This record gives sequence, structure tokens and C-alpha cells, in this order.
Amino acid sequence: MKRSVFFLSDHTGITAEILGHSLLTQFEGIEFKQTNIPFLDSKSKALKAVEQINWAAEQDAVKPLLFSTLLDNEIREIIKNSEGQLFDFFEAFIDPLEEVLNTRSTHAIGRSHGIKGYDTYKTRIDAINYALKNDDGASTRNYHVADIILIGVSRSGKTPTCLYLALQYGILAANYPLTEEDLGDAKLPAPLRPYRNRLFGLTIDAERLHQIRSERRKNSLYSSQEQCKHEVNTVEELYQRENITFLNTSSVSIEEIATTIINLTGLKRRLYG
Amino acid sequence: MKRSVFFLSDHTGITAEILGHSLLTQFEGIEFKQTNIPFLDSKSKALKAVEQINWAAEQDAVKPLLFSTLLDNEIREIIKNSEGQLFDFFEAFIDPLEEVLNTRSTHAIGRSHGIKGYDTYKTRIDAINYALKNDDGASTRNYHVADIILIGVSRSGKTPTCLYLALQYGILAANYPLTEEDLGDAKLPAPLRPYRNRLFGLTIDAERLHQIRSERRKNSLYSSQEQCKHEVNTVEELYQRENITFLNTSSVSIEEIATTIINLTGLKRRLYG
Repeated sequence: MKRSVFFLSDHTGITAEILGHSLLTQFEGIEFKQTNIPFLDSKSKALKAVEQINWAAEQDAVKPLLFSTLLDNEIREIIKNSEGQLFDFFEAFIDPLEEVLNTRSTHAIGRSHGIKGYDTYKTRIDAINYALKNDDGASTRNYHVADIILIGVSRSGKTPTCLYLALQYGILAANYPLTEEDLGDAKLPAPLRPYRNRLFGLTIDAERLHQIRSERRKNSLYSSQEQCKHEVNTVEELYQRENITFLNTSSVSIEEIATTIINLTGLKRRLYG
Repeated sequence: MKRSVFFLSDHTGITAEILGHSLLTQFEGIEFKQTNIPFLDSKSKALKAVEQINWAAEQDAVKPLLFSTLLDNEIREIIKNSEGQLFDFFEAFIDPLEEVLNTRSTHAIGRSHGIKGYDTYKTRIDAINYALKNDDGASTRNYHVADIILIGVSRSGKTPTCLYLALQYGILAANYPLTEEDLGDAKLPAPLRPYRNRLFGLTIDAERLHQIRSERRKNSLYSSQEQCKHEVNTVEELYQRENITFLNTSSVSIEEIATTIINLTGLKRRLYG
């Protein structure tokens, strides 16, 4: 089964897509053909969108699904007259919210993913720069300001997680790779010792690590099954011995790693939405 | 006016928060005290959440707002019996969607921000590594595989935008800083010339640039108003002369820059939701 889906938004389309995706993942066995129509901020663009929707309806011989965060009443009316089946996020929630809050909403476009003022901007950019400068053990001099320091073997997910924590939450996240040399003496590497309570360990199944490393350096010692197994065992022993909380990243997304870390450590976010 | 708000989710909480925030930004003059309760996946956690909600209700003497993407029926029932006012995203949309699609939903937890299989994982990680290796003109050897190359003066938003394009959309985004030397001869720098059709320009108000650069190097030539004005004028002239599409990033968020670039260029995303 195949079904056309449109995400309609006045602005970036990020909210409409997240809403739609989270709903569509609840239905299996249907192939969704997705089209994103953001920045739908004029009558003429709305009429063009209706043409696209109606064309899909005709091709599929079934109503396309429309997930909308449109706020402009005139544009919403135009879309309502298309051949699509409309799921209107604001209609479903804004009216009841207005009632509960006893306040009229502003219907102002571009609020949720727009800029939030200079301080928020700066917090975010500073966190991104921190993640870049303190990536992969490149520098260990600024660990005293880190909110968290991720440790783990090469290719266990440290870098993407740090970048995500910075971009989404403004968290100052450094990461340090546990290499063969570090692991040799079965002790926590010296630069990490003063910051034990900020450490969080990542681990990964040896088989998955072998797969990931093989993409980079096929048939090398680095990517061999034996080496991967050895490194993973050694870091997990280290985590246990040193009482460092850790997470296996083999089948979890970057979002899941980041939110799990926040949840397990009680790490304070510096940015909200 | 102050109001307690809870984001309730079985899993990461990302969807609940984004949907809730996008609704709350529509109400001005109310201060929302936000609490995030993700990974709400057991009866005992649900009962603890109810305690928190009821405590807030008592303190505020008004019902807290609950934005929920909870899927588990038992847990939802427990939350429904709290003193909060529930806005239930799945209840609002899943039933009508089941009817339209003539299919039962799975109620499977952790789908929307979970891992999507090895290929998707690899696309994402490759894009992040590409952004890191091709940041700030560090390397220009791999521009032939770039989906887009952002250009602009130092501190105009190139790096965070490239990282966002990589993380969210799997786009291979490089960036090249237009420096004084590059701009001297009023021509496009040599490494960029073969890739004219992949270039996208960023610009920024001189005053804002002065503010941002002053945070880094106060009272320097680099951050002086004169220098900022000179650089911005020169790059804007270059963009115009060379017919390079460009965007002023002064009052737009990273999300807005990224989605606007995709929208203006027709750039193909490699990842969807």
C-alpha cells in the first residue's frame, strides 16, 4: 500500500514533519510518499500546493494525508478545499489551549524554530565551538568547564552525541577516545582523573564496531573482530571498576543517546526549545 | 501569570517538547515553568509523575498543562487521573488516522527518534564527518562530493549550519571562509571556482557581526565596526557580481538558515525524519 503525505507549514516545516513522522511510524506495511511544503506564506503558494495535492489524489486514487501547522486562516481555508485529508495541529490544540489559558493566541508565524534572542544564540554557538575544540581528545585543557565528558573507544558514537548535545541543548560536551595506550595500564587516563564525576562511558557491541570500522579501514588490525572485542571488553571492565555510568550505543540513535545521558545523569540543559 | 507545564513521553520526549513548545509560543505574557518527564515507561514512574503534577497543581492553585505523546494505555490512564489538563497528541490524531488508513496502529514506543537501520545511521555519520573535515576551509580537496558549500565572512553562521544540515538531513555540507586575502582581488577564490553551482552565500549585518566578533576579540581590528562593515560590503558585492544566492543570518536561527537554504536551492535531503 502506498500513500502520499504532505507536510504543510508557514515556516520551516520542522514541527509539521516531526508531528507527521511520529504519527506515521505508528503504521506498518504502508509506504508513505512524503512531500515537504514549508514557507507556505502566500495565497499563490497555497494554490500551487493545492494543485500538487490534487494531482497526487488523482494519481493515487485516494486522499493524500496533510499534516499542517499552518497558522494563517486564509491559507488554511485554501488548503481545506483541496482533495487531501487534513490533520490540523493548531486547530486540534489551539482552541482548547485558549480556553484553558483564557487568552487569545497570537497566530504569529515562525516562533517555534526562530531565533530566541542574543543570549540563547550565544549559548548555542559557544556550545558548538566547545564541542568542536574538545572533540576526540584534541584538547584536554578546558575540561574544567565541561558539563560532561564522553569517553569510549574509537567509533562508539562520541562525536555525534557531543554535537547533538551542543546544538539542541547548549550543553558543553567534550569527548576523549580511549585508545590502546590508554587502556594498557588499566587505569583511567591522567587527563580524565580530576573529572571523574563528569565522565560518561559509551560502549558498543564488538560485532557492530567491527562493521563500522571496516567501512573506514577494511582488513586492518583496527577493524579486526579480535581487536574490536578486546577494546570493548577492556573499556567495559574499566567502566565497571571505576564506577562510570555507561550506555551501549549499538542500536540507539544519536537522539536516544543524548536524551538517555541527560536522563541518567541529571545533566542540566542550557537551552530549552 | 505563571503556569506549570509538563512534557510527558514514553521515550526521548523530543516530539512532546517540540509540539508543546510550538503551541506555547503562541501565547504571550504567560511564563511557563517547564518540566520534562521522558522515559515514562512503567506504572511506578507514572505514579511518581502524577505526584509531581499534583504538587504543582496545589502550589499554583491552577491546573498544570500536560503535553503527552504517551502510547501505553495503562500509563495514559494513570496520567489522566492527575490534576493536570491533558493535551494528548496521539489521542487527537491516531484514531482519525486509523480510520482514514483503515489500519490499526502499533502503539510501538520509541519509533520517531529511534535508530532507523544501518544505512540511515551511516548516511548521518558520514555527513557529520564530512562537515567536520570540510569545516572552515580546512580542506578543499573533497568539494567534488559536496552537496553544498557555504561561503561567508568569519562568524556569519557557516559552521553551525553545516553541522545542522549534516545531523538532521544527512547533507554533505562544506564551508569556506571568505577572508581579507580572498576578497582582495575581488574574484571568487580559486578552490571555489569549479563548484560555482554548489555555492551558497551567508551574510550578516555589520553591527551584529561587530557584536559577535567583539565577544571573541574585543578591541581588535578583526572585531572593529569599520572592518566588519568593509568585509560585509565586499562579500555582498561578490555575491551579486557572481550571481550567488545569499541569505542574511542576522536574525534567523540555525534551523531557519538550514531550511531556507534547502528551500531556495532545491537541495535534496539524504535523510527524512
